[in-house]
Amino acid sequence: MKRRDFLKVTGLGAAGATAMAAPAIAQSMPEIKWRMTTSWPKSLDTLHGGAEMMAKVVAEATDNKFQIQTFAAGEIVPGLQVLDAVQSATVEMGHTATYYYFGKDPTFTFGSSIPFGPNSRLNQAWYLLGGGKELLNEFFKGYNVTSLLAGNTGCQMGGFFRKEINTVEDLKGLKFRIGGFAGRVMQKLGCVPQQLAGGDIYPALEKGTIDAAEWVGPYDDEKLGLHKVAPHYYYPGWWEGGPMLLALINLDKWNALPKYYQSVLEQAGHFSNNWMMAKYDTVNPTALRKLLAAGTKLHAFSPPIMEASFKAAKELHSEVSATNANFKKVYESLTNYANNGYSWFQVAEVGYDNFMARHSQS
Amino acid sequence: MKRRDFLKVTGLGAAGATAMAAPAIAQSMPEIKWRMTTSWPKSLDTLHGGAEMMAKVVAEATDNKFQIQTFAAGEIVPGLQVLDAVQSATVEMGHTATYYYFGKDPTFTFGSSIPFGPNSRLNQAWYLLGGGKELLNEFFKGYNVTSLLAGNTGCQMGGFFRKEINTVEDLKGLKFRIGGFAGRVMQKLGCVPQQLAGGDIYPALEKGTIDAAEWVGPYDDEKLGLHKVAPHYYYPGWWEGGPMLLALINLDKWNALPKYYQSVLEQAGHFSNNWMMAKYDTVNPTALRKLLAAGTKLHAFSPPIMEASFKAAKELHSEVSATNANFKKVYESLTNYANNGYSWFQVAEVGYDNFMARHSQS
Repeated sequence: MKRRDFLKVTGLGAAGATAMAAPAIAQSMPEIKWRMTTSWPKSLDTLHGGAEMMAKVVAEATDNKFQIQTFAAGEIVPGLQVLDAVQSATVEMGHTATYYYFGKDPTFTFGSSIPFGPNSRLNQAWYLLGGGKELLNEFFKGYNVTSLLAGNTGCQMGGFFRKEINTVEDLKGLKFRIGGFAGRVMQKLGCVPQQLAGGDIYPALEKGTIDAAEWVGPYDDEKLGLHKVAPHYYYPGWWEGGPMLLALINLDKWNALPKYYQSVLEQAGHFSNNWMMAKYDTVNPTALRKLLAAGTKLHAFSPPIMEASFKAAKELHSEVSATNANFKKVYESLTNYANNGYSWFQVAEVGYDNFMARHSQS
Repeated sequence: MKRRDFLKVTGLGAAGATAMAAPAIAQSMPEIKWRMTTSWPKSLDTLHGGAEMMAKVVAEATDNKFQIQTFAAGEIVPGLQVLDAVQSATVEMGHTATYYYFGKDPTFTFGSSIPFGPNSRLNQAWYLLGGGKELLNEFFKGYNVTSLLAGNTGCQMGGFFRKEINTVEDLKGLKFRIGGFAGRVMQKLGCVPQQLAGGDIYPALEKGTIDAAEWVGPYDDEKLGLHKVAPHYYYPGWWEGGPMLLALINLDKWNALPKYYQSVLEQAGHFSNNWMMAKYDTVNPTALRKLLAAGTKLHAFSPPIMEASFKAAKELHSEVSATNANFKKVYESLTNYANNGYSWFQVAEVGYDNFMARHSQS
């Protein structure tokens, strides 16, 4: 064989091989760029940080082939329009607390937490293995979105109050900044719930336009400085016992993804979930100490207030269930799971935590 | 060119092309097959199931390019030789509770849980963001392995006792089947700790060769049938307040992986972690009810026993710290993190859980 023939044939062979190999590469890892909008300002580095972490590990796990650019509230759409932006495919996905959308349908509440819902561990267990994910995604389908677990704040605080509240009577007429569905429980107790964006809370509380305000927990709360104008800090935030954050994904965009990218996204959500919970558990203790050092007075809600709130919440859930079949279905699933879960959780876990809480000194 | 030459040359060309194309494919998604051995029999479908879940999602997230075959205890090596098998690269990775290896060095204990260590949420927060992973992996490096979070059982039970134990005096001479490092705390309390494999516990407890035995929690315990021969079921298992399961990976095999496969493995561990915790929270309540229906008597360890155990554990940790610099370093990191963590956890979380435990009915 002549050298020229050899080269020619070799060339053919190589081209043939490349043509064969190309589909394998394309199938293997297509380059995809998505945008994710969140309900959070960048300053909430636990919540917005969780979304950023999710995007980061998606890129890491796909050798940067699947890239998600994260946008804070207001950069593309306002923080409370994440659902709409995902539904309309303005962005492929979002990171949010779905109870923000309870005005569209109170069933959205279950994607984060309902008043007197389970703690973080049982809430996510319900979502993962208790049928929660399937029920919620069936409901979300009506909005052309699907969801993945993507964070948790743990049990939140009950907020800052200008005056001490001891009895249910003290709640009457109280102008309380409280988010979402929980405001309707507060109304039953005689409170006047107020919807205010994060930045508007401090001036309203300072002027006395409102009497109290809840936000998240020590780390996020301390940034708002509410303790400077309302010294009484109550717990627990029974309307957010273990709220989940979900990644909402446009259903068409989700279905168009290769199965393995769907899996990568799901796993990234698990990372984000665990990272966020760990982050809160790392930064909240220090923030709480700072608040206490600044003169904040820590109080538990009194037993009569807790009992009345529990009763009011159960009433509301029954009322909504009576007129909303979706709400009823998801409520029964979550409540059965949580009651069952607590029947075990209260034994070893709660016993151990009570002991450890008494024996830990920092 | 003759047909024979053509074939010969094509063969050459194809080989050359494969050599050229291979790096592109290899960079993209190389085909990798690993083996993972676990410390669990297949019947422990929460623990072994967690390992299987980890392998499953690694395959899913890589379009089956990265496949991990999972082996139960005894299939390749016995359940307590997972570390050795990974260290020697008999298998690429394993799934285990590292306190099984406390005999090599008690520092291994921190990879699962130490007596009176933090609950599941704070234990994994310490591992993820409290410096735990870095400290442990630095220590594991001496055994040529690295680790990833890959499960949690939640707070375990204290085990089945043939007779009630009420006072510290009742522990004296008690032959108690208990795993790992915790046995040394039990010794300080006058117990005679026994090491028995799962299958040997029932006959020993039936004959009275041992007086008591701890295993995991209701779901795993009920399978062993210990309640039939020892009716008193105690809680909490203070030696396993929130034990982690880790995936141990041979360090050379880990370093040889593309970064994105490392990331996929890590994220799969997060999934496995959350799946296992949710699985336990789903199946333990039913198992507990079955045990109670079969006549099992549930008891909390008495306050004097808890206090004496806490004191004995602290003494042991101080003694080991005095002679083992690694143990001391990791112990201080975990204890500082846990104390700090509980200073916040005891406020909203514990308050909320106590209320919810009282108000949940299943």
